Amino acid sequence: MEEIIKYLNDNFDRYLTELKEYIKIPSISTLEENREDIKACAEFVAGKLKSAGMTNVEIFPTENHPLVYGEWMEQPGAPIVLIYGHYDVQPVDPVEEWDTLPFEATIKDGKIYARGADDNKGQNFIHIKAVEAFMKTTQSLPVNVKFIIEGEEEIGSGNLAKFIRNNKELLKCDAVMVSDSALYAPGIPTISYGLRGIAFMEIELQGPKQDLHSGAYGGGVGNPVNELAKIIAKLHNNNGKIAIPDFYDDVKKVSKKEKESFAKLRFSDKVLCKEVGVKALQGEKGYSTLERFWVRPTLDCNGIVGGFTGEGSKTIIPAKASSKISMRLVPDQNPAKVAKAFTKYVKSLCPPSMKINVTYIAGIGAVVVPLEDKAIEAAQRALEKAFKKKTVFKREGGGIPIVLEFHKSLKAPVVLMGFGLETDNIHSPNEHFHVENFRKGLLSAAYFLDEYSKQ
Amino acid sequence: MEEIIKYLNDNFDRYLTELKEYIKIPSISTLEENREDIKACAEFVAGKLKSAGMTNVEIFPTENHPLVYGEWMEQPGAPIVLIYGHYDVQPVDPVEEWDTLPFEATIKDGKIYARGADDNKGQNFIHIKAVEAFMKTTQSLPVNVKFIIEGEEEIGSGNLAKFIRNNKELLKCDAVMVSDSALYAPGIPTISYGLRGIAFMEIELQGPKQDLHSGAYGGGVGNPVNELAKIIAKLHNNNGKIAIPDFYDDVKKVSKKEKESFAKLRFSDKVLCKEVGVKALQGEKGYSTLERFWVRPTLDCNGIVGGFTGEGSKTIIPAKASSKISMRLVPDQNPAKVAKAFTKYVKSLCPPSMKINVTYIAGIGAVVVPLEDKAIEAAQRALEKAFKKKTVFKREGGGIPIVLEFHKSLKAPVVLMGFGLETDNIHSPNEHFHVENFRKGLLSAAYFLDEYSKQ
Repeated sequence: MEEIIKYLNDNFDRYLTELKEYIKIPSISTLEENREDIKACAEFVAGKLKSAGMTNVEIFPTENHPLVYGEWMEQPGAPIVLIYGHYDVQPVDPVEEWDTLPFEATIKDGKIYARGADDNKGQNFIHIKAVEAFMKTTQSLPVNVKFIIEGEEEIGSGNLAKFIRNNKELLKCDAVMVSDSALYAPGIPTISYGLRGIAFMEIELQGPKQDLHSGAYGGGVGNPVNELAKIIAKLHNNNGKIAIPDFYDDVKKVSKKEKESFAKLRFSDKVLCKEVGVKALQGEKGYSTLERFWVRPTLDCNGIVGGFTGEGSKTIIPAKASSKISMRLVPDQNPAKVAKAFTKYVKSLCPPSMKINVTYIAGIGAVVVPLEDKAIEAAQRALEKAFKKKTVFKREGGGIPIVLEFHKSLKAPVVLMGFGLETDNIHSPNEHFHVENFRKGLLSAAYFLDEYSKQ
Repeated sequence: MEEIIKYLNDNFDRYLTELKEYIKIPSISTLEENREDIKACAEFVAGKLKSAGMTNVEIFPTENHPLVYGEWMEQPGAPIVLIYGHYDVQPVDPVEEWDTLPFEATIKDGKIYARGADDNKGQNFIHIKAVEAFMKTTQSLPVNVKFIIEGEEEIGSGNLAKFIRNNKELLKCDAVMVSDSALYAPGIPTISYGLRGIAFMEIELQGPKQDLHSGAYGGGVGNPVNELAKIIAKLHNNNGKIAIPDFYDDVKKVSKKEKESFAKLRFSDKVLCKEVGVKALQGEKGYSTLERFWVRPTLDCNGIVGGFTGEGSKTIIPAKASSKISMRLVPDQNPAKVAKAFTKYVKSLCPPSMKINVTYIAGIGAVVVPLEDKAIEAAQRALEKAFKKKTVFKREGGGIPIVLEFHKSLKAPVVLMGFGLETDNIHSPNEHFHVENFRKGLLSAAYFLDEYSKQ
């Protein structure tokens, strides 16, 4: 391993340069205008897999954005690890809140600032380069490796899910490695074993056929902005619980053991307040912050718009108003069932003066990974070698849509070994990735390949 | 009068052409980018006053948009009428909902489609041209006339209010003529004698210092969109009444006589529903639709925005959310007092996890004009000559900010003789003005000058 580690350290600056090229491609999967960038990004990834020594590298087209596959299967008898990542990124607005250009990686105070630096270009590049280090140094890998890097993670991984179901033989493996999560705290090696699911909805409320003068019509014609506000207000009760009937039916109770293990992590509400810039936290009564983040479902308006939102004033009754709303789900909630309950309840709140449209945009279930597995144990040892600290086990508030599909279709344990930090501003302006975590990630990924061969 | 009426009819096509030029200038007072257009529009109006035979035509600069003045004072002993209008217009968004170009007047099915066609370019142009007809035909007017045409009506008339207070001698008159309202119904000559006031507010709610990932932080950090919705929902109670404490303290009770006169107007809720495209009306319980429009105060969100509102999905907890809210006021509510009560109440609803900003943007009181006045009586007779129908007396749901100031500072009765229709889409896409109402308006304005001289 010494030779490998030396190669990683010697080539570190080149890795940063290549990562900057990767980041430069604005591969925003949700915007039609970036379709060509997405394609270019898939080709970039395929090129990097080839130059790392992968064989059978192929770009699989899908109904939307392409998938990149590559493998090295020349270690008979050794386990197969499927390394997953995504090359697509979130949009960048509000772009005026960025201090640097979102697609020009800027290194400042030990951090790489750019959209995708953490989520997920930086984190999947770690594995490509760890594999490269082995191949360049020893012309082989200690275990068999398959890569699958997709372009639709930020929009729900719909086509990868189909691809997995239709290509179980191609993707067959003993474990799935995913680096798309965060360390529990700076310098603390972390394995995540739970992810929340999601149900993503949109409400559109239509009042009059067009904007009306609020003087001439105010008091007679219902206002979709006021009414949408009333609907949203009724989505929670006074205790911060979600007020949708049957919403909590399938929510698993948190075990005493898990509650205790969370408590041991000594999470500080005060530090969090400072980090995000609020005077107080807010959430469901009766649960600690970590419980509310990891094992309790939530509901958030991701955006709302209606009427006149420009400079100055325009005194109208808007014709319509809409809101995008996401619910984070926990075991054993079913996203489609939750979406149905949401739709039924929201429709029941629509006043007779209006038309309503409730759309279920996307959904994915929560997942919890069993901790007793050779791949998880190998990851734990690898992390401890790279970080020289004891590994912490945590759950995640967010989800990685495809993890549930890997779990169900490939029947393989998923190792969530991420190197981001919760403060990395993923999905926000000024996303960044710590250079030091990029380095530790490279080491951890290389140690993992070695440790996983020692079954 | 025959000669005058003939002149008006003979020159009608030219008036339409000149009105189109007037409309062509995008004099949106609320947008900084249109500042030069506003200036050009003031010059256009001044030019038209001069060519109509007015003297002492002057453009008065203000702290914001200029005022245009002109007069003809050569009929000693005759009364003075001050004709008011505004050359500024509302913004045009959502511009994609216009069927024609907003600043290219398009005549279609007997209607002039354009921003400002009704509100208020078409309506103030009527008076300029009625005066022109007298001057070109008889080289004099039957009464003395002063014009004051402002450029800030759509943003609250702040500078005209100051100007009136500082120029009481210049503007001294026996009556103020305002054509900026609507006929009660097509073909029905109408005098409005009441206007609602307004208090215009903005709420800005700030949560975390920037947008956060709704997975990582959902359940722990408060969401400004959800919380703003809760605040807005609490602005009304279940009976459609405004829930702000003390809000109704100064609201005058509707008299039995007025209730009866409204009932006689046989207002059809069904026709209104069809006009605006809703299945049912909505408003304060216990009052008829006309009462809710004219003599009861209301509260409407004119716009709301927060978080991700683009195409696709972005699962965030937004950093902030804001809403512009206008309240329509009735006698004897005081806008500043109402704004104070609004601010106090809204602030009390702000959760401890957030920062709130409540701004009182503008306000103006309601006004009711006494009907026993020679100018009102002259207007009634003039309308009946032009329309050949009995004049109806109504109140207005909207306001004309400056009317209250005329009333208070000049101690003159205000004649609200408008020629629009409630269905003219003022403040909305596809604003229009009926060619026939433009014609009847011209005749009414000319007859008024004649009738008002018969004191």
